[in-house]
Amino acid sequence: MAVAGVYGSDNAARLTYSCLYALQHRGQEGSGIASSDGEVICVHRAQGLVADVYKEQVFPTLKGKIAIGNNKYSTSKDRHVRNLQPLVAELPLGQLAISLSGVLLTDEARQSLKRRGTIFTTDADSEVILHLIAQKAADMPLESAILETMKSLQGGYAVLFMSLDKLIAFRDPNGLKPLILGKTTDNAYVVASETAALDLLNAEYVREIEPGEMVVISDSGVESYAKINGYKVAPCVFEYVYTARPDSTLFSLPVYEVRKECGRRLARQDKVEADLVIPVPDSGIAAAIGYAQESGLPFELGIVRNHYVGRTFIRPMQEIRNFGVKVKLNPVDSIIAGKRIVVVDDSIVRGTTSMQIVQMLKDAGASEVHMRIASPPVLFPCRYGIDTPDKSDLIANRYNLEDIRKFIGATTLDYLTLDNLKGAINENDCCSACFSGSYPLV
Amino acid sequence: MAVAGVYGSDNAARLTYSCLYALQHRGQEGSGIASSDGEVICVHRAQGLVADVYKEQVFPTLKGKIAIGNNKYSTSKDRHVRNLQPLVAELPLGQLAISLSGVLLTDEARQSLKRRGTIFTTDADSEVILHLIAQKAADMPLESAILETMKSLQGGYAVLFMSLDKLIAFRDPNGLKPLILGKTTDNAYVVASETAALDLLNAEYVREIEPGEMVVISDSGVESYAKINGYKVAPCVFEYVYTARPDSTLFSLPVYEVRKECGRRLARQDKVEADLVIPVPDSGIAAAIGYAQESGLPFELGIVRNHYVGRTFIRPMQEIRNFGVKVKLNPVDSIIAGKRIVVVDDSIVRGTTSMQIVQMLKDAGASEVHMRIASPPVLFPCRYGIDTPDKSDLIANRYNLEDIRKFIGATTLDYLTLDNLKGAINENDCCSACFSGSYPLV
Amino acid sequence: MAVAGVYGSDNAARLTYSCLYALQHRGQEGSGIASSDGEVICVHRAQGLVADVYKEQVFPTLKGKIAIGNNKYSTSKDRHVRNLQPLVAELPLGQLAISLSGVLLTDEARQSLKRRGTIFTTDADSEVILHLIAQKAADMPLESAILETMKSLQGGYAVLFMSLDKLIAFRDPNGLKPLILGKTTDNAYVVASETAALDLLNAEYVREIEPGEMVVISDSGVESYAKINGYKVAPCVFEYVYTARPDSTLFSLPVYEVRKECGRRLARQDKVEADLVIPVPDSGIAAAIGYAQESGLPFELGIVRNHYVGRTFIRPMQEIRNFGVKVKLNPVDSIIAGKRIVVVDDSIVRGTTSMQIVQMLKDAGASEVHMRIASPPVLFPCRYGIDTPDKSDLIANRYNLEDIRKFIGATTLDYLTLDNLKGAINENDCCSACFSGSYPLV
Amino acid sequence: MAVAGVYGSDNAARLTYSCLYALQHRGQEGSGIASSDGEVICVHRAQGLVADVYKEQVFPTLKGKIAIGNNKYSTSKDRHVRNLQPLVAELPLGQLAISLSGVLLTDEARQSLKRRGTIFTTDADSEVILHLIAQKAADMPLESAILETMKSLQGGYAVLFMSLDKLIAFRDPNGLKPLILGKTTDNAYVVASETAALDLLNAEYVREIEPGEMVVISDSGVESYAKINGYKVAPCVFEYVYTARPDSTLFSLPVYEVRKECGRRLARQDKVEADLVIPVPDSGIAAAIGYAQESGLPFELGIVRNHYVGRTFIRPMQEIRNFGVKVKLNPVDSIIAGKRIVVVDDSIVRGTTSMQIVQMLKDAGASEVHMRIASPPVLFPCRYGIDTPDKSDLIANRYNLEDIRKFIGATTLDYLTLDNLKGAINENDCCSACFSGSYPLV
Repeated sequence: MAVAGVYGSDNAARLTYSCLYALQHRGQEGSGIASSDGEVICVHRAQGLVADVYKEQVFPTLKGKIAIGNNKYSTSKDRHVRNLQPLVAELPLGQLAISLSGVLLTDEARQSLKRRGTIFTTDADSEVILHLIAQKAADMPLESAILETMKSLQGGYAVLFMSLDKLIAFRDPNGLKPLILGKTTDNAYVVASETAALDLLNAEYVREIEPGEMVVISDSGVESYAKINGYKVAPCVFEYVYTARPDSTLFSLPVYEVRKECGRRLARQDKVEADLVIPVPDSGIAAAIGYAQESGLPFELGIVRNHYVGRTFIRPMQEIRNFGVKVKLNPVDSIIAGKRIVVVDDSIVRGTTSMQIVQMLKDAGASEVHMRIASPPVLFPCRYGIDTPDKSDLIANRYNLEDIRKFIGATTLDYLTLDNLKGAINENDCCSACFSGSYPLV
Repeated sequence: MAVAGVYGSDNAARLTYSCLYALQHRGQEGSGIASSDGEVICVHRAQGLVADVYKEQVFPTLKGKIAIGNNKYSTSKDRHVRNLQPLVAELPLGQLAISLSGVLLTDEARQSLKRRGTIFTTDADSEVILHLIAQKAADMPLESAILETMKSLQGGYAVLFMSLDKLIAFRDPNGLKPLILGKTTDNAYVVASETAALDLLNAEYVREIEPGEMVVISDSGVESYAKINGYKVAPCVFEYVYTARPDSTLFSLPVYEVRKECGRRLARQDKVEADLVIPVPDSGIAAAIGYAQESGLPFELGIVRNHYVGRTFIRPMQEIRNFGVKVKLNPVDSIIAGKRIVVVDDSIVRGTTSMQIVQMLKDAGASEVHMRIASPPVLFPCRYGIDTPDKSDLIANRYNLEDIRKFIGATTLDYLTLDNLKGAINENDCCSACFSGSYPLV
Repeated sequence: MAVAGVYGSDNAARLTYSCLYALQHRGQEGSGIASSDGEVICVHRAQGLVADVYKEQVFPTLKGKIAIGNNKYSTSKDRHVRNLQPLVAELPLGQLAISLSGVLLTDEARQSLKRRGTIFTTDADSEVILHLIAQKAADMPLESAILETMKSLQGGYAVLFMSLDKLIAFRDPNGLKPLILGKTTDNAYVVASETAALDLLNAEYVREIEPGEMVVISDSGVESYAKINGYKVAPCVFEYVYTARPDSTLFSLPVYEVRKECGRRLARQDKVEADLVIPVPDSGIAAAIGYAQESGLPFELGIVRNHYVGRTFIRPMQEIRNFGVKVKLNPVDSIIAGKRIVVVDDSIVRGTTSMQIVQMLKDAGASEVHMRIASPPVLFPCRYGIDTPDKSDLIANRYNLEDIRKFIGATTLDYLTLDNLKGAINENDCCSACFSGSYPLV
Repeated sequence: MAVAGVYGSDNAARLTYSCLYALQHRGQEGSGIASSDGEVICVHRAQGLVADVYKEQVFPTLKGKIAIGNNKYSTSKDRHVRNLQPLVAELPLGQLAISLSGVLLTDEARQSLKRRGTIFTTDADSEVILHLIAQKAADMPLESAILETMKSLQGGYAVLFMSLDKLIAFRDPNGLKPLILGKTTDNAYVVASETAALDLLNAEYVREIEPGEMVVISDSGVESYAKINGYKVAPCVFEYVYTARPDSTLFSLPVYEVRKECGRRLARQDKVEADLVIPVPDSGIAAAIGYAQESGLPFELGIVRNHYVGRTFIRPMQEIRNFGVKVKLNPVDSIIAGKRIVVVDDSIVRGTTSMQIVQMLKDAGASEVHMRIASPPVLFPCRYGIDTPDKSDLIANRYNLEDIRKFIGATTLDYLTLDNLKGAINENDCCSACFSGSYPLV
């Protein structure tokens, strides 16, 4: 999921929309923007892509100099329009909007609230947070109520709040999810999940919101509230592997460089006799370039991606082999035929897509297909918002390396080691629980 | 524009839809499919992308074992829903549908028809063709009426006709536009603008429809009618430069290889002192890979393309520099900063996009930007369907090389020579009128 | 069907829209308006009610001081969006739009045109007319081409043509269909099917367009062209019985008065011992008032009509008795229970609705139900555009009076005699073919 | 507003939909239905008319044998899609849906809840009720929580609750709003605002829900809970005057008869020399019939209503006199011209519509226009849900009788006296606060 918010521009909603556009890759199920003109908070939310959700006529209804937005990522449990964010509620201290990216462990708080007579209208963690804040806010200022509430919950998240006159950003104490601060040439502040959102606005990168930090933006400027300390800093390594845009800089490292370094280290793990290196586009491109540079093998774009593919595709008939993958990916036969191919992908989850890609390359005439994965085997489900399947559906839990190779039909198969992945991010602390099972919070 | 048609499958409309999906890059304004069940021709047409135009409920209305479809490319003169194809009309010999890609010189025929009392309800060349066929078809069979009609018109086109029980394909005598024949594993025939449409269906490539050839597909099989001869064969070179998918094979040459060869020859034209080669994605990728391989400079994907960009983007405000290009393209700062960059693009038309790309790279810290164009300067408008601007808007007509370089702000600028472009397609005969002004038909 | 057109107002399309609103009862399948600004004709057409078809954003696209419009009536053969009018075509002499209400005997002309190579894209009679005009217009002015064309065709119709600078109205030589001329307080001319359209605009009624007359409205004012003579004048009597609004004046007689007079004469046909008179609303109201006044029985609105019923109603389940009628009509039990009821309806076609109404009244406690029909038995299908069923489905063709009474379950049943119906319209000549089988044209 | 609910049919949602169809006149802003299949409550809500809100594909999502629905009436303060009902919330004891018609005095409860940290997402009174129930339901069964909650609130309302397995109906202790119970031939129970909803389903009328009574329908049958007593019974008299359908029976009296009796009493108030009596349709019809019968003057439908008028009408231009009224109402000139007219309407609120009607009749040639109003002058705003304007906008507060007559331009003007209105409903206790200022609750 993606969050973005703007403080201090007459075009706050439009700038937030541009950010959401740039962050579309983080959530394609639906999108929403809420804005405040100082007197009332208005909101527009709908299912679909950013390009479809916002029409010109939406923006005159989203007035004011503050706005926050959200792109929703589809998870199995909450595919319902009512779960789209931002949520807006009336609190004793006035209206409050919330946009959350990530996951909080709110089940207990939800049950406890219910027992005390609180009603719920969505499945969103955000609604739990709003209730908790509302119940605290009778006795303390909004900032304190937010701080106390977030302290009481564990999870990996980036969250934006908007009251009538403030924009408040909060990042989880482990720093699992990214959240950055920028500034436009007109001195409006921008908070967003990734730096790519700043680039589109020509906004200057100011800094990361730090793990456990609460940043309050108001007419008094930007204030940073005492951080929640004592937590292990552990940014999500999967952001580097797959989630983030390659042109973003994440937790102070450029994503593209990390992916290239993964490719280089992967090439050093063993030496393949092959004719060329191709990526599975788009997520494998940077790693494949790194692999090619390190191995000295030529890089080719041997698989072409059809970017016009919408969210749904009507299958024409059952019999077409590998149709699911072929709608998106098509090999360049003249490159592939008769060649020994190293194909680089970012990760393997269930293994079925990799199997189809290998078949497709063999159908195109590849004499050998060496699959190289720029991350370790995915062994554990993510608890912080990435929609991985159940443990039993993760192929690396069911098969050993040789059996996975046989299943996908590759000539050889290799994964990047966890040590090499960590090396690629400068031995930084990170959450690699999906590979190691070592979750930063329990 | 794209055409596609299927004969001999119970899923004819669905297979045609898949072809149109694969050919989306050739026309994004609208799409349509007509199908025949032997008793009546039904049609569905709408503005928008293939992914949006066809819903599951459309297909039960498109019954039968024959279907033809069309993706419409937007030209300045005919942006009206009534101009979407296929057109369907009642003729004396029954219903006839038409799907046309390309341009015919029909103005004179249209005026002559009007003078004789024919009415028109669209601006499409297809409608002129239907009228001409209808007037001939009183005296001769459909095949002859089509052949006589097409002989009487000049242009660059690929056209499909569908009667209640036949699918008829025709390619212009100069062979300007591509049109290929394939066969599915279930022995249905497929006719389409590019081979990429066959790949998605796992259909076998049979052969090109030859210049001036009419192919009639019916229960009697595939029949080829005497070609219109005496024309110079001149496939459109711009298909290689930009239009076609890199994974298609066109006029017997793989597009990706041609583009790479253009890049290699461009690298040989002069020697640049630089640190790396990057493409303008996606159209410049293959040429940039060729350039990198020939020059020995490292290849990097230094500009990232946002593929979620829809057909319209609401500009958030006027002041953001280079916004138009930045919505789609974003530099990877860590790659670009402090480097001497060779950036490879497919062509320059007006020059404004190139200018924005150069600025964007300099803003990202490039110390030098060497713009290399994998085709010659565009000097003449296309007469056969590519929507180039007026001659006076083509920057190469207004400025010399040095002034273009200054205009776009590049450190150096070079275009591929026409000889080298022709060399890259094996000195094949081709139409390169947009570069040379030498039109195959006058 | 309804036609309406306006000449000479900057709000021509908006005024035409108001007319179509007032004439909604004549056609609910779809609506369209074409307007001319002197340079181009634009058109908007869609399926649905006038209130849904036109949104505010439509009108800026319908510029100019001339407009013509159409409400389409659904007939079994042409329920397709392509058959909506106005049609617009390019002719040698420029664009021409047509809006037709009624039916022409065009089958022969259509076949003959097809044999000569003319193509058709709709099933509408209007398209035949356009082709015929186009073929004549090479040799003569538009007015003559229209006149010659209309002379060559037989039918019952009112038709409006619009060229870039003229509005031309034509009424069939028998005068079967109504067409009237009015003038707004701003001196714009209005042509419409009924006077109710003028009332809404506060426009003054000028006169009827006469049978066989062509009226040309241009900057030179209103010109009347030599009428097609020698035809028997025979306005459609069913307009008085059912089609027209009760507040319109038709063929110089107020519809409400004619219906009341039918009711009075019906009351005089025999004397019923009853407690009260109720109409089947809305079409039976005026006749029921006349009946009540003549018979001296009290008039009550004993059946209430639900006017919110849309064009489609989703049947909740099969078992509910008389559901089809009850969605629209509901008896007022307190009025009906224990009473001897005279119920007045405009006509009986298949008999099923009458049967349900009688059952419904008995269920509501009526002790006797005397059905009185304010027109004669419908015995023959209409050839001029009223969508009556096949002869065999007309109940009066299958049963005699007593058997119809038994079928519908009424205590007694009486129809107005044809003589009395003619008497109610002052013995005027009229077409009463649906009752008498005597068609004015053969 | 309207409520309707069904218990015990596999077609519960469809039957509820039919009820809402029949009750469309009570609320046209939007509609919603929630249904329970015993495991989950699903809901469909949208702005618009019932005919537009529900498509066939909605019903498969509304499974189960219990359903409740709502038609929303537009009031100035809550025109927002989020205020559509039924609302559905998760409570400690499971899901609960609510559909409310009427108004509760909830401001204080809302503020108190807010102070205690409750958040609100709508402006609807229903949401306050849900919160109050949720907070009580921790300690007692649902039925008790509802009873306690409703006891704590004052207002005029009819409300339906639906849990997973129960349908609970509650009517306000004053009995201001109607709520009736019926039973289908299949033994499903129906609860609805008016008896007209039963008629459409052929359902049998069982009885009124009594003032202050709670009825619980479950597999155990229908249980009635101890009524809230000690309140003055005071059904809303405006239901008889305007709100209810004429074919409904309300608080045990047939609405049509009450309206006719009002007309009769109005005729007895003074004697007018006139030629005929006409109603303002549809709301004035029954009273006009009563007036005509009592006075001996002939009844005519001298004004015709256009029932195709949608919720919005695009005004064609500013200058057309009385356009707002003329879109809906049009005089029958032949009836009106030269006549002395008594015109009967149900009420006068602001006076502007009456003024336009009088002008329209004079324009149509009426020599005298005697306006007769079948209810007393509206002097006080309604506190229980009828959207009357501010006191200062009620014309009867600003002018005396003679000045109102002058303002609307009538020859004479008379209102029904409050005594006569009460007489027409058999001196029943009722709330006539809008006429008398005597509110049953303060």
